[in-house]
Amino acid sequence: MSDTAAAPDLLSWTCPAPVRDRPRVVMGHGGGGAMSAELIEQIVLPALGTAAPAPLTDSAVVELGGARLAFSTDSFVVRPLFFPGGSIGDLAVNGTVNDLAMSGARAAYLSCGLILEEGVEIDTVARVAEALGAAARAAGVRVVTGDTKVVEAGHGDGVYVNTAGVGLVPAGIDLRPQRVVPGDVVLLSGAVGVHGIAIMSERENLRFEADVVSDCAPLGSLVEAMLAVTPDLHVLRDPTRGGLAASLNEIAAGSGCGVVVQERSVPVPPAVAGACAMLGLDPMYVANEGKLVAFAPRGHADAVLAAMRAHPLGAGAAVIGEVVAEHPGMVVARTGLGGTRVVDMPLGEQLPRIC
Amino acid sequence: MSDTAAAPDLLSWTCPAPVRDRPRVVMGHGGGGAMSAELIEQIVLPALGTAAPAPLTDSAVVELGGARLAFSTDSFVVRPLFFPGGSIGDLAVNGTVNDLAMSGARAAYLSCGLILEEGVEIDTVARVAEALGAAARAAGVRVVTGDTKVVEAGHGDGVYVNTAGVGLVPAGIDLRPQRVVPGDVVLLSGAVGVHGIAIMSERENLRFEADVVSDCAPLGSLVEAMLAVTPDLHVLRDPTRGGLAASLNEIAAGSGCGVVVQERSVPVPPAVAGACAMLGLDPMYVANEGKLVAFAPRGHADAVLAAMRAHPLGAGAAVIGEVVAEHPGMVVARTGLGGTRVVDMPLGEQLPRIC
Repeated sequence: MSDTAAAPDLLSWTCPAPVRDRPRVVMGHGGGGAMSAELIEQIVLPALGTAAPAPLTDSAVVELGGARLAFSTDSFVVRPLFFPGGSIGDLAVNGTVNDLAMSGARAAYLSCGLILEEGVEIDTVARVAEALGAAARAAGVRVVTGDTKVVEAGHGDGVYVNTAGVGLVPAGIDLRPQRVVPGDVVLLSGAVGVHGIAIMSERENLRFEADVVSDCAPLGSLVEAMLAVTPDLHVLRDPTRGGLAASLNEIAAGSGCGVVVQERSVPVPPAVAGACAMLGLDPMYVANEGKLVAFAPRGHADAVLAAMRAHPLGAGAAVIGEVVAEHPGMVVARTGLGGTRVVDMPLGEQLPRIC
Repeated sequence: MSDTAAAPDLLSWTCPAPVRDRPRVVMGHGGGGAMSAELIEQIVLPALGTAAPAPLTDSAVVELGGARLAFSTDSFVVRPLFFPGGSIGDLAVNGTVNDLAMSGARAAYLSCGLILEEGVEIDTVARVAEALGAAARAAGVRVVTGDTKVVEAGHGDGVYVNTAGVGLVPAGIDLRPQRVVPGDVVLLSGAVGVHGIAIMSERENLRFEADVVSDCAPLGSLVEAMLAVTPDLHVLRDPTRGGLAASLNEIAAGSGCGVVVQERSVPVPPAVAGACAMLGLDPMYVANEGKLVAFAPRGHADAVLAAMRAHPLGAGAAVIGEVVAEHPGMVVARTGLGGTRVVDMPLGEQLPRIC
C-alpha cells in the first residue's frame, strides 16, 4: 500500500511491577493484556465457578432451540466520545458486530445499555444514539432491546454504552485457536494502529504531519467474503485492545504453536509510525477497530488474500507471517535488520479507555 | 398474609418541573417513569431511527435460525453494592432473567460486562462475581461471554455490571399488553416495596422496627408454573424501577384499557408501610426485584392464582384488581375508605440507583 511503510524497529514492551497480589484494580486491568487476563482467569472465573462453563471469550458459540448462535458483549468507555473517524456509538455497534464476525456469525440483533452521567447534555446523548443508529444500519443489524441508567455527576463520564449481540453461525464454520496448525498462513486485513493513534491525537490534542482517522468499521461482510472462499479458515481475531500483539499471543497460546511475523510485512501508515515513535508506542500494541487477523490453511491462503483485497475493508490486506512448530505459544518477529525478537503479550494498557 | 397489612392511604405523587426542553440529563431520567420514557421515546429512538424497528422493550422476542428467542439487557448501578438480601451480582442475574421470564422465556445464556473503577478492591470484584455466579446457578443460567473495562477513579462507583440474556420462548406463548381485554384479572405474586426499602435502609443507615430484606429472586420457574396452567396469560411484568404503579400504567397504556386496583388487596408488609410513611414514599411506586404482576383471562384466574400460591415465590400472591373498558389507559385505585384515586405514572425517581 502506498500509504503504509515498513514498521520501525519496535520499542520493547517494558513490564511494570508484578500484578499478582495487588489489592486494588488499576487501569492496566482494563488494557486487554496479561493483567486483564489475570483478573478474569484468577479472580472472576473462579468466583463465577460452574456458572461459567468455559473461559469467557469475546464471542461464545452456543446452541439454542436448534440454532447455533454467537453471543457477545462489550462495554464502551472511550474518551473522548467523538473522535476523528467515529464515536462511542460507532464503536458500540462495530465492536460487538466484529466480535460476532470473529465467530463467523453475521450479527442480527443488538441490545443497547446506556449509563448516563447526571449533567451530560441531552444533545450529546442524541448524537451518540444517532451515531449508533447509523452504524447499526451500515452493519445491517437491528437494535431491539435496551436499558438506560443514570448515575450522579462524578460517578460516570458522560455516556458509557454496553452492547450485546446475537447472530447465526453458519453450518461448517468452526473458528478457534485450537484449529491452528504449523504451516498456517497469517493474514492481516490492513494497516495497524490507526484507531489508537486517532483517539490519542484527539485526546491529547496532538497534531501529526497527517491526520489519523479511526479505522472503526463492521467486518461482517469481509468475513463473509473470506468464508465464501473457504469455510475452512482456522481462526479470526480483531486486534482491538492490546493490538495485533495481543491477538497473535492469544492465538499462539490457544493453539500451542509458534507464530512468526515478518515485521516488514505489517502495514503501518507513516503517520502512525511517526506518532508511535514520538509517543514511545509500538504499533503492534496499538488498538484497531476495523481490522482482522486470519489464520488460513496454506492451500487456501492465496485465494483468501485475493478475496480480502477485493473487499473495501481488506484492500490493504497482506500475508504477515506463518505458524511454526517451534517455540510453542510464543510470537516471534523477524525484524527489518534480519534479527528476531519476541513479541510479548502486553501486560497492561498503553492507552487507557480506547474503546 | 399475616406479614402484610393494607396499604396506608397513599401519598399523592407530586410532579417536579416539566421535563421537556431540559438541556441536561437529571437523575429522574433513570427512574423508570415518565421521564425515562420521554428520554427513550423522544430522544434515543428517533436518533436510532430505522435501526430500532420498534419501541425498545425490556425484553424483545425475535426470530433467529428458526428459533423464537427472547433477548434482553440491563445495566446495574445499585448503591451500595451489597445490601440486605442481595447484591449487584444477584440483581445483575435476576434482573435479566426476570426480563426474559416476562416474555415467557426461560433464560439460557447470559453475558456479563463489568465497568470497574480504578482503585476498587480486587476482593470486592471477587465478591460481586461470586454473588453473580451463585445467582446464575440458582436461576439455571450460564454466563458464557464477558467483557471488563476499567475507568479512572472518579468516573465510576466501584463496580457497574451489565448483563444481557437470551432464552427460548415456547410455542404458543404471546405475552404483551395489546392482548389485555376488559374482564382480565390482575394478579400480584406477593408483597410490594421490599427491595426499594431494603436498599434505602442500608444506604441511609435507617433502622426500622423490623429488618427489610430485598426480595431479589429469579422468577423463571414461577412463570413456568403459571404457563403450565394456561399458556393464554395475556401479559406479565416485573415491577422494578417505578414500582407496581409504573408496570400497571405501562400495561394500561399499551392495552388501551383501564385498570382498577383494590388498594386493600395489594400486600404491603408492615415494615415497608411504616418505612414509606416515615420517608414520604408510596409503596406502589417503590421498586421490587422478585415480584411479578400478571393479567389473566377471568376463566383461568383462580387456577393461575392457585399455581402461584403453590410456588415459594408466589406464596403471597393475590388478586389485586381487574381490567375495565372505562378510563382507557388509566389506572385507578379504590381506596380503603371507599374512594378512588388515579395512580399516575411516576415522573422521575423516588429512589435513585436502586438496581
